[in-house]
Amino acid sequence: MRFGVNYTPASGWFHSWQNLREEDVRRDLGQIASLGVDHIRIFPLWPVLQPNRSLISQTAVDDVLTVVDVAAELGLDVNLDVLQGHLSSYDFLPAWITTWHRRNLFTDPEVVQAEADLAEEFARQLAGRPNIMGITLGNELNQFAPPVHPDAHPVTPLQADAWLEKLVAGARADGEHFVTNAMYDASWYDDRQPFEPRHAVDYGDATVIHSWVFNGSAQIFGALHDGSVRHAEYLLQLAAAWHHDAARPVWLQEVGAPTTVIPRESAPDFLEATIRHAATVPGLMGVTWWCSHDVSRALADFPEVEYDLGLFTHDGVLKPTGERFAALVREFRAGGVGSPSSTALVLDDTAEGYRGTCAPGGSFHRAWLDAAAAEGQGPQVLLASRAPYAEELVARGIRTVLEASPEGSRGITSNR
Amino acid sequence: MRFGVNYTPASGWFHSWQNLREEDVRRDLGQIASLGVDHIRIFPLWPVLQPNRSLISQTAVDDVLTVVDVAAELGLDVNLDVLQGHLSSYDFLPAWITTWHRRNLFTDPEVVQAEADLAEEFARQLAGRPNIMGITLGNELNQFAPPVHPDAHPVTPLQADAWLEKLVAGARADGEHFVTNAMYDASWYDDRQPFEPRHAVDYGDATVIHSWVFNGSAQIFGALHDGSVRHAEYLLQLAAAWHHDAARPVWLQEVGAPTTVIPRESAPDFLEATIRHAATVPGLMGVTWWCSHDVSRALADFPEVEYDLGLFTHDGVLKPTGERFAALVREFRAGGVGSPSSTALVLDDTAEGYRGTCAPGGSFHRAWLDAAAAEGQGPQVLLASRAPYAEELVARGIRTVLEASPEGSRGITSNR
Repeated sequence: MRFGVNYTPASGWFHSWQNLREEDVRRDLGQIASLGVDHIRIFPLWPVLQPNRSLISQTAVDDVLTVVDVAAELGLDVNLDVLQGHLSSYDFLPAWITTWHRRNLFTDPEVVQAEADLAEEFARQLAGRPNIMGITLGNELNQFAPPVHPDAHPVTPLQADAWLEKLVAGARADGEHFVTNAMYDASWYDDRQPFEPRHAVDYGDATVIHSWVFNGSAQIFGALHDGSVRHAEYLLQLAAAWHHDAARPVWLQEVGAPTTVIPRESAPDFLEATIRHAATVPGLMGVTWWCSHDVSRALADFPEVEYDLGLFTHDGVLKPTGERFAALVREFRAGGVGSPSSTALVLDDTAEGYRGTCAPGGSFHRAWLDAAAAEGQGPQVLLASRAPYAEELVARGIRTVLEASPEGSRGITSNR
Repeated sequence: MRFGVNYTPASGWFHSWQNLREEDVRRDLGQIASLGVDHIRIFPLWPVLQPNRSLISQTAVDDVLTVVDVAAELGLDVNLDVLQGHLSSYDFLPAWITTWHRRNLFTDPEVVQAEADLAEEFARQLAGRPNIMGITLGNELNQFAPPVHPDAHPVTPLQADAWLEKLVAGARADGEHFVTNAMYDASWYDDRQPFEPRHAVDYGDATVIHSWVFNGSAQIFGALHDGSVRHAEYLLQLAAAWHHDAARPVWLQEVGAPTTVIPRESAPDFLEATIRHAATVPGLMGVTWWCSHDVSRALADFPEVEYDLGLFTHDGVLKPTGERFAALVREFRAGGVGSPSSTALVLDDTAEGYRGTCAPGGSFHRAWLDAAAAEGQGPQVLLASRAPYAEELVARGIRTVLEASPEGSRGITSNR
């Protein structure tokens, strides 16, 4: 299992891409490497990379390569997210896609072509560098899709398929990269989100999960309750239910301890419990913590949570979460992870509005938590639409199938 | 009278601010200096300068200083526009003012404070450099104000006063700069525009005009008709009507030959006639042509007009308009300008919707053109609200007052 961190530059946050200072990168990545992790995930800004629809900035691409090469010197692999897009409440859209030039970033053919061109440019430029972990299409681009976005770019599920196909092809241009698609959790929890659970498993080389307990989990269940510390495990198991190949990896690409809902003194325990639970999920390829460094208080207007997510302070002091994370990395490097659950809970994905039942506090979520409590381990998830599961049970090592009723735990019935 | 050009970088357009190359600047400014002009107007990009509400990028400010110093070596003065804002159909708004962080750029107190901070930062950093011509608050920020903008930032005329007061104070922080406020022509022509004619004359040290005959003038009157080649003169005279001090300078800060409405072969004649007419306006301090270099066809999605506005092609070849401009600069440097008209036409600014009558083809515009044809020179403009004009007539050298009726030329009556 791999361990890494999402790299949030200590000086100037992601705005530092506008004038990258190699010495700052070296300082930050040196601190990150001291945690014992093997990789970082990086996020250049779209308007800096591609200021005009037909102009990819070679300077900006070179800056990305600089970060990759500094990481290599420090023994770190790098996963690159292409389109940002969205980061910590801020949207970074190039001027050629806004106001007078407003075009849909998922469906306008010229816009999508330009995005694919950028992915392809990176695929080629990163080729041959041995410390490239992979390419993610962009950070949670599906945040732009739903009508709750103040400046939404509407897309249908079928159009989302076409978009993903085009961008994955771009990122695969060089034929060698590990490609992933990262979505925020509305894909599994919100029936209005046009990027659906199947979009997580039908594209790229692994299924990506971003687990954030400020989504209601921590508020409903409390900071150290299973509803919070098993949230990442749950979402990983839930996402894997749509796999067509039981061996497809799952990647906990973002998980953090938001101290707006997790008391700061509980954050290390939350971190440890979260990672121990997640590590039991079959096929987990890695955990990439969010994030490396706190946002400095000198930067205005961030949501409060963003100022305290780092494993390091903005001036490079290791925090208690960082110490705990490093200890877990050492432990997991030395030993193995637990074995996956042989129990599975059935999700009725044929029911209208089933995604709402999966959301924190929803009937399926509660049933899963109850089963986890009863078994001492979070169950895998099966989709009712795939019954009777004959091959799947074998491939996934499932021996017990539980049915969840809409009433939650009390309705669990065993098909053991 | 001063002559200059609006500097549109030949390589990478204004995106070049993201990674300024001094050698490119030196090449471009060398070409510009060969025209015999004395100044340039420059436009750094707001998101590059101020990526976070509380972060002004010293690198970006240093890049501006680099351009200023290269200009000085080449004998060019520099006018800096602070907030871009808007350039050639593209809007550049920092992420802290859009989508989830949407705030009004004219009325939100923290946003306005940040804008004023940026103006103040430039005021201080530019202080002491002898080749600073002045500071303009930003390029046509009033484009964001009216409801026709797809992402409008509503503001009332009184709020516009407060905004201007705050920003002018910022730009004056060092006490030495020549400060101006640049608005597009809707302020004089469109009754829905909250930035009004008085906002042009009540703030800063000169009244700024941007004259663009694609606003209907060329379409209605033809490329070389007085309605087009006297448009800049007309707008300068119209704007000066609101002056409280007859000695206040007027600056033709932007004027260009848009070949979408001016046939390319007529563009040099349009340029020459425009400048000769404008030069007769009392108090004209200078003409700053738009622009130095064509936008390269390698850059996508610009309105067609933007690819052919340069005095040079994007690869540095002097165009016929450039030759004509240089010849006029030489001529005006050697000799003087004509004397201003002693005739004035009265605009009834007390009538509802009077701004619409001033627009190209409107009754006041036509009356002014008729008077110009009859007198052989464009008349000055008096505001009916200020009748009987006793002091104004003396101060402005007006001996004949014409009344314009809503029917246009036929209704002109002389109060000679």
